Amino acid sequence: MIDQSTICAISTAPGNGAIAIVRLSGEHALDICEKVFTPVKSKKISEQKANTVHFGTIQDEGEIIDEVLVSLFKAPHSYTGENSVEIACHGAPFIQHRILQTLIKNGARTANPGEFTQRAFLNGKMDLSQAEAVADLIASNSAAAHKVALQQMRGGFSSEIAGLRERLLNFISLIELELDFSEEDVEFADRTQLTKLVNEIKSLIEKLVNSFELGNVIKNGVPVAIVGNTNVGKSTLLNALLNEDRAIVSDIEGTTRDVIEDTINLGGITFRFIDTAGIRTTKDRIESMGIERTYSKMKQAQIVMLLVDADRDMDRINESLVSVNKTIDRNSQHLVVCINKIDLIENPQEIAKNLIGMQAEDKLLFISAKQKQNIDALTAELLKSVNMNKVNEQDVIVTNIRHFEALKNALGSIDRVNDGLQTQIPTDFLAQDIRECLHFLGEITGDISTDEVLGNIFKNFCIGK
Amino acid sequence: MIDQSTICAISTAPGNGAIAIVRLSGEHALDICEKVFTPVKSKKISEQKANTVHFGTIQDEGEIIDEVLVSLFKAPHSYTGENSVEIACHGAPFIQHRILQTLIKNGARTANPGEFTQRAFLNGKMDLSQAEAVADLIASNSAAAHKVALQQMRGGFSSEIAGLRERLLNFISLIELELDFSEEDVEFADRTQLTKLVNEIKSLIEKLVNSFELGNVIKNGVPVAIVGNTNVGKSTLLNALLNEDRAIVSDIEGTTRDVIEDTINLGGITFRFIDTAGIRTTKDRIESMGIERTYSKMKQAQIVMLLVDADRDMDRINESLVSVNKTIDRNSQHLVVCINKIDLIENPQEIAKNLIGMQAEDKLLFISAKQKQNIDALTAELLKSVNMNKVNEQDVIVTNIRHFEALKNALGSIDRVNDGLQTQIPTDFLAQDIRECLHFLGEITGDISTDEVLGNIFKNFCIGK
Repeated sequence: MIDQSTICAISTAPGNGAIAIVRLSGEHALDICEKVFTPVKSKKISEQKANTVHFGTIQDEGEIIDEVLVSLFKAPHSYTGENSVEIACHGAPFIQHRILQTLIKNGARTANPGEFTQRAFLNGKMDLSQAEAVADLIASNSAAAHKVALQQMRGGFSSEIAGLRERLLNFISLIELELDFSEEDVEFADRTQLTKLVNEIKSLIEKLVNSFELGNVIKNGVPVAIVGNTNVGKSTLLNALLNEDRAIVSDIEGTTRDVIEDTINLGGITFRFIDTAGIRTTKDRIESMGIERTYSKMKQAQIVMLLVDADRDMDRINESLVSVNKTIDRNSQHLVVCINKIDLIENPQEIAKNLIGMQAEDKLLFISAKQKQNIDALTAELLKSVNMNKVNEQDVIVTNIRHFEALKNALGSIDRVNDGLQTQIPTDFLAQDIRECLHFLGEITGDISTDEVLGNIFKNFCIGK
Repeated sequence: MIDQSTICAISTAPGNGAIAIVRLSGEHALDICEKVFTPVKSKKISEQKANTVHFGTIQDEGEIIDEVLVSLFKAPHSYTGENSVEIACHGAPFIQHRILQTLIKNGARTANPGEFTQRAFLNGKMDLSQAEAVADLIASNSAAAHKVALQQMRGGFSSEIAGLRERLLNFISLIELELDFSEEDVEFADRTQLTKLVNEIKSLIEKLVNSFELGNVIKNGVPVAIVGNTNVGKSTLLNALLNEDRAIVSDIEGTTRDVIEDTINLGGITFRFIDTAGIRTTKDRIESMGIERTYSKMKQAQIVMLLVDADRDMDRINESLVSVNKTIDRNSQHLVVCINKIDLIENPQEIAKNLIGMQAEDKLLFISAKQKQNIDALTAELLKSVNMNKVNEQDVIVTNIRHFEALKNALGSIDRVNDGLQTQIPTDFLAQDIRECLHFLGEITGDISTDEVLGNIFKNFCIGK
């Protein structure tokens, strides 16, 4: 059941802006607006048409708080599906909060995180996977993340799943009819048709499950551990990569002060560069703790980038390489060895010849971060490691771990349905597997949901959405 | 002349929010919107009525960038007075910038700081002092600052000034007519009426000039230097003051690392507490540099708050007081002596008796920051120092230094006009003084303005307003 209260929240980013938006939604949104808003034109707000904008003042017991623009939306033609009002005020946090307080004084309550979107879902304006995509869209910070979130919000794979689930629902009702008439040995559900549908579902789910590896990369970025000593030119390299793409670098302080992440968009994909301490064998206790940490960061990375100075002696270079070799798992990780500062040496190929422990799948690049030599090649190599070309441009991509889990479960059930159809298992077992598959598919679209699931989903939204 | 280009900007605060607003204004705002926006309903944007909201997608060469709400405003009924569009999109910075880029690709250009408001001024939607108040309103962070900015934006004293200026303009035209007919010794302008008007103007300007002291406090906060040693309980006191009012404390790092400002709202007024090192006589060079800095911070303060421990010996307490006494200027500064930690001693009055160098106008308070004793009294004392009661609630207050300067200049001219009327100086001298007064008053409302003045005013606005 939907909470009938009228909710309000500041929906624009916190801080000072030119404009801020305070949102109000619920049964009494228009009444509350009428109480606090005095339009310049005499006509009452409640008599105005939906989807119109009005200039006037917000007042709190006669005191003018701001001159605002008020947009009116009427149920069901609003984001939430309820009566809604958007108040565009001057962007001072002081004003935003005064307006919020005034709305609360007049009968609204502050919205919980994601409550506007939750109401949109509960009012049937969007399915659950679309609602989840709204949060992803707001958080998207790369072209790829933006694209998949938008696609998902606009229906994406969920409409396809909903369609297939609908067809499967028709079959289950026929099969359950068979069970009612089980003594008569009738077959209402056409097994050939059902097998065809099951294969269709299986093929879609498999495609979606396989897309998750890329989806996860798109959503969370590709973790790249840079292994190298502090003076090896890590920040120069990051800046060089950055300049190539005019992207945004942001510094996120890690859990420990000595692990710093730089986020860079390259070719529409977010790479999270994790700076680690250098690695070499040591007996010093403090230093070996640092190296321990480097190893643990390396294990979390999808790409390990070893950055060494071309002008160091070969033993030192190989020492790092040997250490990395011990830690890296080439089944799930890529190794990119970058020989930096090639502008300082005469014959880089000499280094290539003497490297110990490189394997065929490892990449070797000679660069100069400072002179911006071969940075293009490095960018291309990083993008290749993500395997963007594994998935077609037009394909739908799953980025949400909840969807991934539900799809994996649905795949298990649909496989059992398929097996059951082929081995002609008793109808009641078949029905059980189909119902299970329906359940897992329904979890994605939210046809099946619990308060707990909804609570977990919407608590991660920002307030005001 | 108003630049005819169509401008666009992100108008909400930077960062991730649920919603962001991208603004578009100018002759081609609706055409550009039509090129990038595909409404869900088939009707063209250009055929829609003003002040209506439309749901649809922003597209860049066929690629959907976001689902948005578009609000349409048509000249002259918009903020800028031009055709305008407000695009409410999902609040990801990535999306905001993509929309901005798409608008630029289709013929808009990015707006300069304050350019929307500058156009509102140039199109006669508001006078210059109202335009300036928009920036103050957005920056307002206390009840008082909000109130005066809003009042000024809604006309405030500028409409009154404009009215008086209008009447003075009538007189100057009559007086100039007299000059044309100077050989005939006629008097078109009634001198009694003119004297009455001049007195009216003089009285308004005087009131406004006098309000600036308070206006400046309201706008910029009251600087309070806290003098006291580090362990004397300064931060405990600030927190105690804070808790009384549930206000916001923010830390602003000063120009030097050892000067920290805490901003606290008390009774609707912002106080800027400047933490200084303690002061005592020393021969140590480094320490005397610190003390030098304390003195210089004290000089900038409107209130000097000496915070001493009640449980210190009397000589130490008096040492600080003597030092403060040497530095403080009681004509422009208030001294508040706070004896802290009174919960630790038996007889605080003993301290009061033995204080050396207190003067009648100085305030003495016995408090316990930790136990929150007498904090109310301290708050009241601070507010009293600001002299809020000097100015009536209903009075209009000048907060802008540009207005203050212009008003002071206008006051000089109007005084000369007044003297001239009384001493019956030749009409051409009188006309000269009146024209000067008209000029200075016109500077406030923007009837007289140069590109340079406008440039200086609007460059301090945020982009998007």
